[in-house]
Amino acid sequence: MEKKEKDEKLHISRHSLAHILAKALVELYPTTKLTIGPAIDDGFYYDVDLDEQLTPDHFNAIEKKMKEIINKGENFVRKVLNREEALKLFKDNAYKTEIINELPDDAEISVYYTGDDFFDLCSGPHVESTRNLQNYAFKIHAVNGAYWRGNEKNKMLQRIYVYAFADKKQLNDHITMLEEARKRDHNKLGRELELFTTVDYIGQGLPILLPKGAKVIQLMQRFVEDEEAKRGWQITKTPFMAKSDLYKISGHWDHYKEGMFVLGDEKKDKEVYALRPMTCPFQYQCYLNKPRSYKDLPLRYDETSTLFRNEASGEMHGLIRVRQFTLSEGHLMCTPEQLEDEFKGCLELARFMLKTLGLDEDISYRFSQWDPNDKEKYIGTQQQWDDAQNAMERILKDLEIPYEVGVGEAAFYGPKLDIQIKNVFGKEDTMITIQIDQMLAEKFGMEYTDKDGVKKTPVIIHRSSIGCYERTLAYMIEKYAGAFPLWLAPVQVKVLTLTDRNNDYANKLYKVLQEKGLRAELDDRNEKVGYKIREALSMKIPYLIIVGDEEEKSETISIRGRGFESASGLKLADFVARLENEIETKKL
Amino acid sequence: MEKKEKDEKLHISRHSLAHILAKALVELYPTTKLTIGPAIDDGFYYDVDLDEQLTPDHFNAIEKKMKEIINKGENFVRKVLNREEALKLFKDNAYKTEIINELPDDAEISVYYTGDDFFDLCSGPHVESTRNLQNYAFKIHAVNGAYWRGNEKNKMLQRIYVYAFADKKQLNDHITMLEEARKRDHNKLGRELELFTTVDYIGQGLPILLPKGAKVIQLMQRFVEDEEAKRGWQITKTPFMAKSDLYKISGHWDHYKEGMFVLGDEKKDKEVYALRPMTCPFQYQCYLNKPRSYKDLPLRYDETSTLFRNEASGEMHGLIRVRQFTLSEGHLMCTPEQLEDEFKGCLELARFMLKTLGLDEDISYRFSQWDPNDKEKYIGTQQQWDDAQNAMERILKDLEIPYEVGVGEAAFYGPKLDIQIKNVFGKEDTMITIQIDQMLAEKFGMEYTDKDGVKKTPVIIHRSSIGCYERTLAYMIEKYAGAFPLWLAPVQVKVLTLTDRNNDYANKLYKVLQEKGLRAELDDRNEKVGYKIREALSMKIPYLIIVGDEEEKSETISIRGRGFESASGLKLADFVARLENEIETKKL
Repeated sequence: MEKKEKDEKLHISRHSLAHILAKALVELYPTTKLTIGPAIDDGFYYDVDLDEQLTPDHFNAIEKKMKEIINKGENFVRKVLNREEALKLFKDNAYKTEIINELPDDAEISVYYTGDDFFDLCSGPHVESTRNLQNYAFKIHAVNGAYWRGNEKNKMLQRIYVYAFADKKQLNDHITMLEEARKRDHNKLGRELELFTTVDYIGQGLPILLPKGAKVIQLMQRFVEDEEAKRGWQITKTPFMAKSDLYKISGHWDHYKEGMFVLGDEKKDKEVYALRPMTCPFQYQCYLNKPRSYKDLPLRYDETSTLFRNEASGEMHGLIRVRQFTLSEGHLMCTPEQLEDEFKGCLELARFMLKTLGLDEDISYRFSQWDPNDKEKYIGTQQQWDDAQNAMERILKDLEIPYEVGVGEAAFYGPKLDIQIKNVFGKEDTMITIQIDQMLAEKFGMEYTDKDGVKKTPVIIHRSSIGCYERTLAYMIEKYAGAFPLWLAPVQVKVLTLTDRNNDYANKLYKVLQEKGLRAELDDRNEKVGYKIREALSMKIPYLIIVGDEEEKSETISIRGRGFESASGLKLADFVARLENEIETKKL
Repeated sequence: MEKKEKDEKLHISRHSLAHILAKALVELYPTTKLTIGPAIDDGFYYDVDLDEQLTPDHFNAIEKKMKEIINKGENFVRKVLNREEALKLFKDNAYKTEIINELPDDAEISVYYTGDDFFDLCSGPHVESTRNLQNYAFKIHAVNGAYWRGNEKNKMLQRIYVYAFADKKQLNDHITMLEEARKRDHNKLGRELELFTTVDYIGQGLPILLPKGAKVIQLMQRFVEDEEAKRGWQITKTPFMAKSDLYKISGHWDHYKEGMFVLGDEKKDKEVYALRPMTCPFQYQCYLNKPRSYKDLPLRYDETSTLFRNEASGEMHGLIRVRQFTLSEGHLMCTPEQLEDEFKGCLELARFMLKTLGLDEDISYRFSQWDPNDKEKYIGTQQQWDDAQNAMERILKDLEIPYEVGVGEAAFYGPKLDIQIKNVFGKEDTMITIQIDQMLAEKFGMEYTDKDGVKKTPVIIHRSSIGCYERTLAYMIEKYAGAFPLWLAPVQVKVLTLTDRNNDYANKLYKVLQEKGLRAELDDRNEKVGYKIREALSMKIPYLIIVGDEEEKSETISIRGRGFESASGLKLADFVARLENEIETKKL
């Protein structure tokens, strides 16, 4: 069977199982009001209006009832109704009534019966008989509150989540994967390792980077700034807010305002400001600071830039979905002839970063194009979009980049090459983006005098290089289960004493490590060394130096590595040299 | 004569000269309507409603007329009027009429006559006779628009600015000082050197740091972060905004809201956010992340922190008065016993920074206290303020810090030691501040378990270390007239060619400099070398390497320093070593 066909079959089966769940609920709790129950990535859910508050204690009985229904081998029988008949059938269910009333005049209204008494409003399709579901494996795993139609003014329903797969092995694999992922989940592990926290009275999507997390970001930031400087990028530092006037020129006011934090009230105030959601129109001011000639191009500006996006509270998550984030955002102005080489340079930069961080295996490419059927979302003409997209397609072909196409995923001013990354739970996000923009330069009056003396408009590449630091930190936590490569580890080495007699010696070593610029800690508490080692390993510290009488006498050290390596009789100087080499080479 | 007496005499003379200016204007332009004419720091001004638009071409004639009046030796004659008489006398002058009507019932209304015909509403005092002003030297230097009473809804008047001093030498010294200052004015020179710019449609107080300015700030920032890390400060990275809930706990909502950018409308929105004007309540969350013991103290957190202050547009100025700025803000939590040592450590840190930047000679200290007559501006009790201020006084005495007292200049939560700096125009601003806070920890429930097992509240020191980077950059521009010390210079060395024949050799040198990590530029244009040198020196580049046939043949370089030093026959490697040493030692 083709993958697509297989996927479709799984989807139909999951949705059929949602009907089975609904039937089981109605049999167990006859006053249950059904609403909707779609298939999702790893199973399905059903939103129900149910007097009894369900808890995990109820799950077994519901699953048992579902199995009973499946084993009966009842057929899914489709019946087409007119609107009047449908409204009559669902007269006791306000939710279904609302859905029926909203259906367009020419819609075919159908219900599916499973057995004589149970029916549900549904356009189908379904499996033929519940017996077809007998090999399927499913597991109810959560029940959450969910507002009817996602609107908080509506009644809060119960959403029952169920994993569902084609067989028991696939279900178990999925559950095992999730357990493993949960251990690496940055939103849990990142807090345990004291990398970040969140605070209710500060707000959602506004994480606080504790010293250890802030240190990792500082190290990544300097690495990125230095690498970019080497590659000819000039750093800028532009303001985080501007008058609406700026965003009106760039088009953000018309195409992005709902995603921006606006300061002031357009109706009342003479001047309205907004926090920036992108750096582009700010960085262009550097280009505009003086007249430019073709000799100045390409001009590459980068900035460690903080951006703000006014997203809904419900969408906030750890370090991944946030309202404020910082990234290295760059804009490159070049002639059309330089475009391909410069695009290639941007892509090489991003790949270099990903490789250095060890994330290069986890990515895929998406060519994000405009949606010609939704022209209002974009600026520019069909011709301009064709030009920009053709240019990008040609470049991607030349570079032999394998990509998927994302229609409607372009920026409002141009197509993007998005570097996508999957997190431990399999969820995909955009990490890095490289965009071709043939429109904004003209809006800001950016030009250069070409060889022929004619004023021309430069092409702009918008690009990031390791994505936003908060999100990259999250991926690094999950990738390495918190055990960062040495050069990024917030604490690189910890000195532990075997007895109080060794405190002076340990202190001496600790001072040397600090003087060498290593991030060191000292544990000279009067505790059992086994306890001290376990504690240090749980914080994922790369190397432990353990010293007792023997080490002190011979002026050596014993070490224990995060990867369970251990050795003794080492000279501190040799060990430091080894660490310095590991840091210098950014060993993974 | 005592300084105070002298100052008073100068003030009276300046204001008397303002009357002379007014009389001269009325004689020259009989329809002139006088408004107000106060003495200021370097002379006086007078705001007049005058049909003729004055320009510098008019200044000579006005000054001549003033001298005529002075030489007549007319007395300043005071006459007291009742309100009715005063209104009658000024019936043709709507401005004076407005002033008279606003005077309280018990006010003594007086006019001063100079000669028989000229009089002005004024409470005095004045010199006896215009003859007393004969030795004074004055110079009209500007005429600007100024709204009546500073309100843009009122008529725009002409404000005539005049320098005035006790003798010609003092006036000339002042004018020379200003000319010198203007050459160094960061708001002019900083733009010429392409360090920053501003853009109308972005907004006032939101400067754009161009690559050269951003580079200087990046270098300062890394220097500060690294120095603070060496001294035991742990870096954090906390969000730039929070819900109003946070500011309500800290007291900012009650005591500082009008200075904050608020996002949303308190009356309408469920959640209101605000951009932060200080880092304190954010950084406290790091302390609160887990229980603390006396063994954890002192805990020193620093952050390269961006802050936002909603100041009036009219107060914005270059890099000095801005709406968004970045500084290293630190908060230190300690026991009362540790306070003095830690305060000393903070002061040492600040002094080290100032000395490294070469700004240590330009500062003075201000002990900023609360104003007990304006208790509403502050939180806490008299007792708490006495405690905190006594502690600071004791510390300052122990450290033998000479200081002036600034009553009413404290933060709302505690007293401050402000390190004040004067700019080239003599204007004083706070650059660095170290504060003792015995109040906010309690508000946030911050505590530690002491040796005796009892939970106690830590004392907090709030401190900056080189002040905000934008402002520090401004002072550095002015201090060095744009010629930054080598380690901070945005471009450190530039290679210039004598002829096109030397381009390859120059290019080779340029690449070596870049590989050595020096910030280098290359000028291999086909232009006269004199022109290229002048251009490079005007950009204040520390060192120029000039190469022609001779240098190429002998594989040497000729150099030209910013300080007119020059040498030839040097080996590049030796020169690089010298530069590296100058950078390493942060030579001024």
